[in-house]
Amino acid sequence: MQFKTKSDMQALFKRVSNWGRWGAEDERGTLNYLTAERTAAAAKLVRSGKTVSCARNFPVQPGPENPTPALHHIVMGGDDPCAHGIPGMEVSLDFIGIAYHGLASSHIDALCHVFVDGKMYNGYSAQEVRSTGARRNSIMAARDGLCGRGVLLDIPALRGTKYVDPQKQVTAAELDAAETRQDVRAGEGDIVLISVGRDAWREQNKPKPGEGPPLAGLDPSCIPWLFERKIAVLGSDAVHDPTPSPAPIEDWPIPVHMCALASMGLHLLDNLFLADLEKACRTEKRWEFLFTVAPLRVEKGTGSPVNPIAVL
Amino acid sequence: MQFKTKSDMQALFKRVSNWGRWGAEDERGTLNYLTAERTAAAAKLVRSGKTVSCARNFPVQPGPENPTPALHHIVMGGDDPCAHGIPGMEVSLDFIGIAYHGLASSHIDALCHVFVDGKMYNGYSAQEVRSTGARRNSIMAARDGLCGRGVLLDIPALRGTKYVDPQKQVTAAELDAAETRQDVRAGEGDIVLISVGRDAWREQNKPKPGEGPPLAGLDPSCIPWLFERKIAVLGSDAVHDPTPSPAPIEDWPIPVHMCALASMGLHLLDNLFLADLEKACRTEKRWEFLFTVAPLRVEKGTGSPVNPIAVL
Amino acid sequence: MQFKTKSDMQALFKRVSNWGRWGAEDERGTLNYLTAERTAAAAKLVRSGKTVSCARNFPVQPGPENPTPALHHIVMGGDDPCAHGIPGMEVSLDFIGIAYHGLASSHIDALCHVFVDGKMYNGYSAQEVRSTGARRNSIMAARDGLCGRGVLLDIPALRGTKYVDPQKQVTAAELDAAETRQDVRAGEGDIVLISVGRDAWREQNKPKPGEGPPLAGLDPSCIPWLFERKIAVLGSDAVHDPTPSPAPIEDWPIPVHMCALASMGLHLLDNLFLADLEKACRTEKRWEFLFTVAPLRVEKGTGSPVNPIAVL
Amino acid sequence: MQFKTKSDMQALFKRVSNWGRWGAEDERGTLNYLTAERTAAAAKLVRSGKTVSCARNFPVQPGPENPTPALHHIVMGGDDPCAHGIPGMEVSLDFIGIAYHGLASSHIDALCHVFVDGKMYNGYSAQEVRSTGARRNSIMAARDGLCGRGVLLDIPALRGTKYVDPQKQVTAAELDAAETRQDVRAGEGDIVLISVGRDAWREQNKPKPGEGPPLAGLDPSCIPWLFERKIAVLGSDAVHDPTPSPAPIEDWPIPVHMCALASMGLHLLDNLFLADLEKACRTEKRWEFLFTVAPLRVEKGTGSPVNPIAVL
Repeated sequence: MQFKTKSDMQALFKRVSNWGRWGAEDERGTLNYLTAERTAAAAKLVRSGKTVSCARNFPVQPGPENPTPALHHIVMGGDDPCAHGIPGMEVSLDFIGIAYHGLASSHIDALCHVFVDGKMYNGYSAQEVRSTGARRNSIMAARDGLCGRGVLLDIPALRGTKYVDPQKQVTAAELDAAETRQDVRAGEGDIVLISVGRDAWREQNKPKPGEGPPLAGLDPSCIPWLFERKIAVLGSDAVHDPTPSPAPIEDWPIPVHMCALASMGLHLLDNLFLADLEKACRTEKRWEFLFTVAPLRVEKGTGSPVNPIAVL
Repeated sequence: MQFKTKSDMQALFKRVSNWGRWGAEDERGTLNYLTAERTAAAAKLVRSGKTVSCARNFPVQPGPENPTPALHHIVMGGDDPCAHGIPGMEVSLDFIGIAYHGLASSHIDALCHVFVDGKMYNGYSAQEVRSTGARRNSIMAARDGLCGRGVLLDIPALRGTKYVDPQKQVTAAELDAAETRQDVRAGEGDIVLISVGRDAWREQNKPKPGEGPPLAGLDPSCIPWLFERKIAVLGSDAVHDPTPSPAPIEDWPIPVHMCALASMGLHLLDNLFLADLEKACRTEKRWEFLFTVAPLRVEKGTGSPVNPIAVL
Repeated sequence: MQFKTKSDMQALFKRVSNWGRWGAEDERGTLNYLTAERTAAAAKLVRSGKTVSCARNFPVQPGPENPTPALHHIVMGGDDPCAHGIPGMEVSLDFIGIAYHGLASSHIDALCHVFVDGKMYNGYSAQEVRSTGARRNSIMAARDGLCGRGVLLDIPALRGTKYVDPQKQVTAAELDAAETRQDVRAGEGDIVLISVGRDAWREQNKPKPGEGPPLAGLDPSCIPWLFERKIAVLGSDAVHDPTPSPAPIEDWPIPVHMCALASMGLHLLDNLFLADLEKACRTEKRWEFLFTVAPLRVEKGTGSPVNPIAVL
Repeated sequence: MQFKTKSDMQALFKRVSNWGRWGAEDERGTLNYLTAERTAAAAKLVRSGKTVSCARNFPVQPGPENPTPALHHIVMGGDDPCAHGIPGMEVSLDFIGIAYHGLASSHIDALCHVFVDGKMYNGYSAQEVRSTGARRNSIMAARDGLCGRGVLLDIPALRGTKYVDPQKQVTAAELDAAETRQDVRAGEGDIVLISVGRDAWREQNKPKPGEGPPLAGLDPSCIPWLFERKIAVLGSDAVHDPTPSPAPIEDWPIPVHMCALASMGLHLLDNLFLADLEKACRTEKRWEFLFTVAPLRVEKGTGSPVNPIAVL
C-alpha cells in the first residue's frame, strides 16, 4: 500500500477509521482501549520508582518555533506581598496564559483539534467547535487522566545516530525494528512515545536565522501500524508529522494528525521532552513504564498543556 | 500546647521548621520525604486501576469565589479552520489564561507562595520573588511530578455529617480518629488529602448574595501533626485554612499556609474536588491509592493549576 | 407611534434603517455624517482649551458590574529593571488585557457588535464575525478617529434630580426639553452624550449585595429622534438601554443597541464617565465642545476601550 | 558640547533636568507646558478638518520586531451570538491583550517607564514601580488627554531621501534645518513628531532573516534642543533612540529615553505611523495641526497603547 496521493490518503483515512466503533456518542476514541485493567497492569511495571517529567518548560521565550510565546506574569511579588491589605498576609501570586498548540509547548491534542473535510472524530461537524468552545470532542474526554503503560521507541538509537534526519521519515518497519532491538512490544491500550531526537538535532545543528529547526516525523506507513496495534495515545518529542514535510501530499499537510485525531480518535502528545526519559530507560535497561498524563479540565477545550510523568 | 496568640504561632512556626534540614540550598522541603522507594511502594497499591480526577473544572465562570475568572478563548474555530492558509489544514485552536491562586482553581502552591516576616521556606528572602519571577522556591522544585501514596481522610464521615461545619475546625485528634475509623495511617512521604465536604455544603446551604460559601479548615493543632508524621504534600477540597476564620489569630490570618509552606516546606494542593474520590474509596473500601500531581513546568512560577489523578 | 411589542420594534427597525444609504459596501454608517467640514467647525468651538476625559479608569477591580475584570500586570518592575541584560538599561514594562464589552469599561461598540435576526448593519451576515475576527463592520471603520462637535444633554438636571430613576426611561420629548433648557441643539454629524447620572445614583443608593446598580436608559422613542437628527455617534454614562429594563419588549432586550448599531449604523460609546464634563460645562455655561474618540486600530475588532476627550 | 562618553551623558542628564521645576510632587513633567491656552490656540489651527490616524494596527502578527505579539481573541462570534441565553440578544465580543512597550505597538511611555541609576523623573525611586503597579509617574498623569499643537519634522525630505539612514543619526542642526525648510517652528508646549521614514525603509530594504529592520533615531545633540524649546511631548515613527545604535555610549544604551523620560519628564510616543500624516501635510502644505493623544486610564500603568489623531 502506498501513501503518496490524495486518494491514497482518503483510502487510508477510511481504513483506519474508528467512527462508530464505540457508539455514535463516543468522544474518547482509542482511550477506550486504556481500560482500568490495563491501568492496573501498568502500575505493576514500576520498579525503581524514579519519576521523569516528559515536558518542556513553559514556553515564555519567543523564537522561530514559538512565535506567540506563553505569558507568565507576577501579579503580586515579594516587593508588595501585603497589597491584599490583610494584616500578616504576605503572598506572591502569578498569572499564566498560553495558546499551547504549535511547536513549543508540551501539550495534548483533543480530538476536536483537527478536521478532515469539515468533520472530526466520530463524524461530528467542525461547526461544533464554535467561538465559544468545542461542544464535541473536547479535552474533557480525558478529564480523569491518562494512566497506562508507556513504551518508548528510540529511533535514533535504531539508526545508530543522535537524531532522525528530518528528510528521512520514520517508517512502520522501523517501529517494528525498534521494538525488536529494545525487546519491547507496543500493544492494545498502550501509550507509545516515539523519539526522533529533536533536542539532539538542535545541539548539533544550527537552524537558519529566523527559522526553527526542521522536525522529523512519521511516514504515513506508521498510521496503519498505530491502528492495528490499537495504541491508546501517541507521543513525540516533535509533532508526529515532519515539519516541513520532505514528501508533501496534496491536501494532506499533516497526515498523522489527520488520521490519528479525526479518523482513529487517537489523542496526540506533541512537543514532549524525551531526552531525560531516554537516559533513565537506558540506565534501567527497560523501555516500558507507568505513564500519566493529566490534562487540565478545560470544558470545551481543544487540548491542554501537560507535564506527562513516567514512573520507572 | 495552645495556638491562640501571635506568640503561640511564632513558637509553633519555629517548632515545625525544616529550614536547613536538607541543606542550605534546598527548595523541595518535605518533597524530600517522597523518595523513589516510596513512589515504587505506592504503585503497588493499585488494584482496580480506576483513575479519578481530583480537580475542579477550569474556572471560567465568575462568582463570589472566583472574582477574576480564568480565560478560555477559541483562537480559531470550526467556522474558519483554514485561516492558516495551508491547503487541507483544518484546525481549531484555543488560549487559556489563569491567575490560579485563590478559591476557585485546583492548584498547587509552590513554597514561594507565602512569606512570614519577609522570609520563605529555608530562610530565603521575599525579595527573591521579583516582578520577573521567583528566583527561589519556584514550582520547578516539583517539576518531575509528585507521585506517591495518597491517603484520604474523610472528616464529615467521622463526624457523621455531610460536611464540616465551617465554624468547627478540624483538630489533630480528629485526624487520628479518622485514621482509626478508616483503618489507614498516614506516614512519612505520604500525600494526605483531608476532605471537609465543601461541595456537600454547597448543595445543602445557600451562600449569602454576593458572598462565597464559608470554607471549613484545619485547626492549628493539625500543624504539628503534619510535621511529626512527615507528610510530603497536603491537599484539601477547600484551602486548609478556614475562610473566614472562626478563631482568627492576630497577624496569623492563614496559619496552615504560613507554617506549611514557609516553615515546613510542605507543598499544598488547594481547592481539589474530592467527592468523586470519596465515592470511589467507599466503593472499594480503601483509603489509600497511587496519587499523581503533575505541575506545569513554569520557571519562576509560584505554583500551577493541576489535575491530580488518583489510581485505586 | 408605540414601541411596546415585537412588531412595533420590527417596524421601527425598518423605519430607521440606513442600509444601502451610503452604498452596498459601506461600513461607516452614520460616521458618514461626520464630514471634515463638520470636524473643522467643531474645532472652532474651543474657547478655554480645557480638556476633560470622559472615561472611567481601566476596570481591574472585580464587582457585580465587572464579573470579568481587566488584567493589568507589571511584566518588569523596579525590583528587576535590568532583567533585559543590556548594561545601563533600567525599565519597567506592563501588560494590559480586557474584554471591554459589558458594564465596566468605557468603550466604543463597532457596528459588528450586535446582530438582529442574524444580520448586522448594511445587511451583512452575522457569519462574517468569525472566531478569527470580524470581516465586516469592524472597529477599523473608525480608525482615523471620531473628532467632531460634542453635545451633552443633562437629563437629571432637566428633571431636577441628581440621577435618572432607573424605572423611568428617558423619552424623546425629554431630549427636546433638555436642548431647550440648555439652549443647544444636536444636529447632523454631532456626537451626542446623554447623561443619566449613573455615578450620582451610586453615591446616594446602595446596590443589593451581589448585584450592580440598575442602569437608567433611553425609551425607544429616542430611536427615531436619533435617526431624524442624523446623529453621528451616541454616548452615555450607562449603556443606552436600561438594565434591567423596566419595560422589556419580547425578543428586543436591548432596543437602542439593536436599532442604533444594526439598523442605523450608529456607533455607541458605553459606560462613559460624564460627571467631570458636566461640571466643566456648568462652569463654562456651554454644552457643546470639541470631542475626540480614538479607538485602537484592532483589525477585525468588535470595538475598543477608549478615553474620549472633550475640549471646551 | 560632546555626547560620547558616560560622563558626557551624566552631565547632559543634569543639564536638562526638570526635577523640582514644578514642585516636589509633580508627575506631569513637560506636560506642564501644554496649558489650556495652548490647547485652545492649537484648535484654531484646524482648517480642512481632515483627521489622520498616526497609529499602526494592533500588532497581533509575530515577527522579529514583535516577539511577543498582542492578543486578539473573539470571545463570542457570529456562530454562537445567543450564547448569553437572553432571548433576542445576538452579540459578538472580543478580548485584547498587549505588552505594548517595544518596537511594534504605537504607544505612549509614562514617566515611570525608564530609570537612570535607580531614579525616575522628579527623583522618585525605581522601587515605586512594584509588581502591583507604579505608585509614581504612572500614565494617569496624562489621563485627561494630550491635546495641543502638533508639528511634524520630515527628516528624509530634508535629506532628499526616502528614509533616514539608520547609521546616520538625526542631529539638532537638522531639526533646525527641517524647520527652516518647512517654514515651521516648534516651541513651548508643542507635540513634536520627527519622521525618520521607518516604513519607507522597509519598502526599499529587506531586513536580514530573523532580524527586524534597524531603526534610525536621534543623536544626543537633539536632547538639549528638546529641553530648550520646552517641547511638551515627542513622537517618532521609530523609537527616538537608534536601534541598534551606530554610536553606543557606555551604560547609556537609550540616551533619548533616559534623558527625556527620567530627566526632563518628557512623555514619548513610540512607533507611530507617520506616512499618512506626511502625505496629508504635503497636500495641505502645512506642518502644524491639532494633535490629540488619549491614553487609556490605567491606574499605576507604565504607558498605554494609543491611536493619536491629527486634525489638519
